[in-house]
Amino acid sequence: MIFASPEAFRAALADLPAPDASATSAARARQAQLTKPAGSLGRLEEVAVFLAGWQHRERPRIDRARAAIFAGNHGVTVHGVSAFPSSVTAQMVANFEAGGAAINALSDVAGLELEVVALDLDTPTADFTSAPAMTEAECLAALNAGAATVASDLDLLTVGEMGIGNSTAAAALCARSLGRNVADWIGPGTGVDAEGIVRKAEVVRRALGFHADAPRDAFETLRRVGGREIAAIAGAVLRARQLGVPVVLDGFISTSAIAPLAADNPAIAAHCIAGHCSAEPGHVLLLARLGLDPLLSLGMRLGEGSGAAVAVGVIRSALAAHDRMATFAEAQVSAKL
Amino acid sequence: MIFASPEAFRAALADLPAPDASATSAARARQAQLTKPAGSLGRLEEVAVFLAGWQHRERPRIDRARAAIFAGNHGVTVHGVSAFPSSVTAQMVANFEAGGAAINALSDVAGLELEVVALDLDTPTADFTSAPAMTEAECLAALNAGAATVASDLDLLTVGEMGIGNSTAAAALCARSLGRNVADWIGPGTGVDAEGIVRKAEVVRRALGFHADAPRDAFETLRRVGGREIAAIAGAVLRARQLGVPVVLDGFISTSAIAPLAADNPAIAAHCIAGHCSAEPGHVLLLARLGLDPLLSLGMRLGEGSGAAVAVGVIRSALAAHDRMATFAEAQVSAKL
Repeated sequence: MIFASPEAFRAALADLPAPDASATSAARARQAQLTKPAGSLGRLEEVAVFLAGWQHRERPRIDRARAAIFAGNHGVTVHGVSAFPSSVTAQMVANFEAGGAAINALSDVAGLELEVVALDLDTPTADFTSAPAMTEAECLAALNAGAATVASDLDLLTVGEMGIGNSTAAAALCARSLGRNVADWIGPGTGVDAEGIVRKAEVVRRALGFHADAPRDAFETLRRVGGREIAAIAGAVLRARQLGVPVVLDGFISTSAIAPLAADNPAIAAHCIAGHCSAEPGHVLLLARLGLDPLLSLGMRLGEGSGAAVAVGVIRSALAAHDRMATFAEAQVSAKL
Repeated sequence: MIFASPEAFRAALADLPAPDASATSAARARQAQLTKPAGSLGRLEEVAVFLAGWQHRERPRIDRARAAIFAGNHGVTVHGVSAFPSSVTAQMVANFEAGGAAINALSDVAGLELEVVALDLDTPTADFTSAPAMTEAECLAALNAGAATVASDLDLLTVGEMGIGNSTAAAALCARSLGRNVADWIGPGTGVDAEGIVRKAEVVRRALGFHADAPRDAFETLRRVGGREIAAIAGAVLRARQLGVPVVLDGFISTSAIAPLAADNPAIAAHCIAGHCSAEPGHVLLLARLGLDPLLSLGMRLGEGSGAAVAVGVIRSALAAHDRMATFAEAQVSAKL
């Protein structure tokens, strides 16, 4: 186990590596010499410099990248918080394995190795309105299942999830970690109606009340109101940081996995790119709180790492321009008047 | 010549084909059956349905796509409207041909055939503050040079430009075609300072005054205050419509090429996707007037078709999901509760 105990997880979260300042500077200097007006590639320039810092090289690249997609089931679905039955989680995992889901097509276009990790789908988490979602051992196992998907030779990791009911868990994680009104974190998820949204908010309020006196550190919040696939994402993001692998987050649920971590150590988001801004209304608030500016805003709200996969195309464009463009000197192009 | 006369151009603009309604419906019906909550792929779903209509098939594809990049020089640069000397236009064309520009890297990542068309760079257009930028013959030649880049077997065309001084021409085209205050259409372009912006606005006001009593149809506006590379884009977009080839527009200058066409026939934008929203401030106004919602917003302002090329990655993702995803029935996934 990479994180052998809750204490090991806490220690890792307290000791986050920084990016390589010299690679960052070298990449920024290179950008200034390329044949274009300074800054004219906008976010593409920023992405190249960002990846330079985390990959420790002036010219970052994506030779090997992985889409890690985690699936879990949620006891909280007994309260009617999703538009789909819990059986869909396993059905969609089978669909991932058969190659028929959105993430199969999108990860293929993006050049991502797809790794699907189904986490004890036959054993949903406990209903977190009246018990912790997971035992310590279950939460640790999920964190480690996430961490295990991160190889040190990855140039980039994208994370995604599938789990009927998990937008309710995500809302609970955000509300417990970051405050605000519960309603701010609630949305239609896969498509519940107005009554469903009211039910989701009630469920989250009840959960916050039940766990009000429990410890508020990242591990306990993940364990109490999270879910296996969400804890796995948290573990993957933290492990990626230890190994110097930059991460592309997906939508509201993926991003909610690091909300409890950010409450303990705001630097956790520093190696993460927000792939996109989801249509789920809480996502824009969550990204703002994490200081992340999403690359894309395409009205997507599917999960599965789908938005992150699309964003990888933009990131590949950024790196190609950074790597292959000629400098003003090389191309004998006159600089600014 | 595809457009043998100004009248032939006008006739083509007045007779724009519509998309294939049955392919559009079939694509929409397919989207509703794919294994995802309805609408959850957001713009990706819209893009797939859009391309289905223009490609006349339920499952659109991009087997052959071209980036057509046009270059021209501008007499109006005598007024100090650009941060770079006019010689940079030819230098950048040489850079395109040597493979060292942003568009080389970006079109390669996007799987686009790059076609660079340099239009009489040694003969800049006339200074349009005191004469039409082009003669009728020159403008027709530019329109036809653009039209000639569109092959009927293209699945997609992206358009881009390079031309020192052309953000001033673009502003003049927008102001003459669409109204508003001249200042609304003026921005820093490749990076002029505040004084340069004031100069650009004065130049455009003078040009509008000089041509105030001239005819206001698309051909005359392109000829009087446009430029060769801009007219070429207009010709390419119109020809693409005739041949059923959907187009991805780039930034402010590329999009300004269709502003005069839209004033004559607002349907001209219907086969166009706005690849991105440029940092050039007039672009957001222009896109709104054309009814186009940009796919990307990455703070890019380079031109060269660079933003359109990055957008092609998103479009490929949209088509891959549309084509390859399993239906609920195929994957035996339960539908909504």
